[in-house]
Amino acid sequence: MNTNVSKNSSEGSVVIAPGRRRRMLHTDSLMMTVIDFEDGPALTPDPHHTHPHEQVTFVAAGEVLFFIDGKSRHLEPGDMVAVPSGRPHSIQLLTPRVRLVDTFTPLRQDFI
Amino acid sequence: MNTNVSKNSSEGSVVIAPGRRRRMLHTDSLMMTVIDFEDGPALTPDPHHTHPHEQVTFVAAGEVLFFIDGKSRHLEPGDMVAVPSGRPHSIQLLTPRVRLVDTFTPLRQDFI
Repeated sequence: MNTNVSKNSSEGSVVIAPGRRRRMLHTDSLMMTVIDFEDGPALTPDPHHTHPHEQVTFVAAGEVLFFIDGKSRHLEPGDMVAVPSGRPHSIQLLTPRVRLVDTFTPLRQDFI
Repeated sequence: MNTNVSKNSSEGSVVIAPGRRRRMLHTDSLMMTVIDFEDGPALTPDPHHTHPHEQVTFVAAGEVLFFIDGKSRHLEPGDMVAVPSGRPHSIQLLTPRVRLVDTFTPLRQDFI
């Protein structure tokens, strides 16, 4: 088994909320998570949240509104969004299924 | 203009080699790059390379062989691979088009 690799399957993923699964892989200081949402679309945004970890997100599938700095941006597959440390942010799902790739430094110990 | 966001277009991307373009977004310590390869498939791997930055890669489209630690893994869309600091690694494109999302900490100053 090669722990350097995480394959695209529900094996190794965890249910984080109804209709939402997360899979992850990390080095010492860099964490990548793949989140599959099957609970969209949503009429309202998720609650804003914040964390000291820096975050950059890639939209792999679906569409979302991404809220940061008092603005919302419509994000589609291939788009990226950056979240500096401590900046409140949120998403609203616009499509039935969404896949986001969230990356963080340092590690989200709350995910491990 | 919101510099927190990088949209999925060739605007803002740079040609890094014939048939290869890169787009990026970063916070203070976390960099995400989207690399579009249109020069596949390849008969042989790219040269191995190494860097002190930790790396985690997501395969957004296409298929590659990923070489690390003397092994190769066949990666498909949705797969992730982790590269610890200083570990030699390489890819071989298996499909005509490949999209990789490479993330790094600290920042790749050579990309800025």
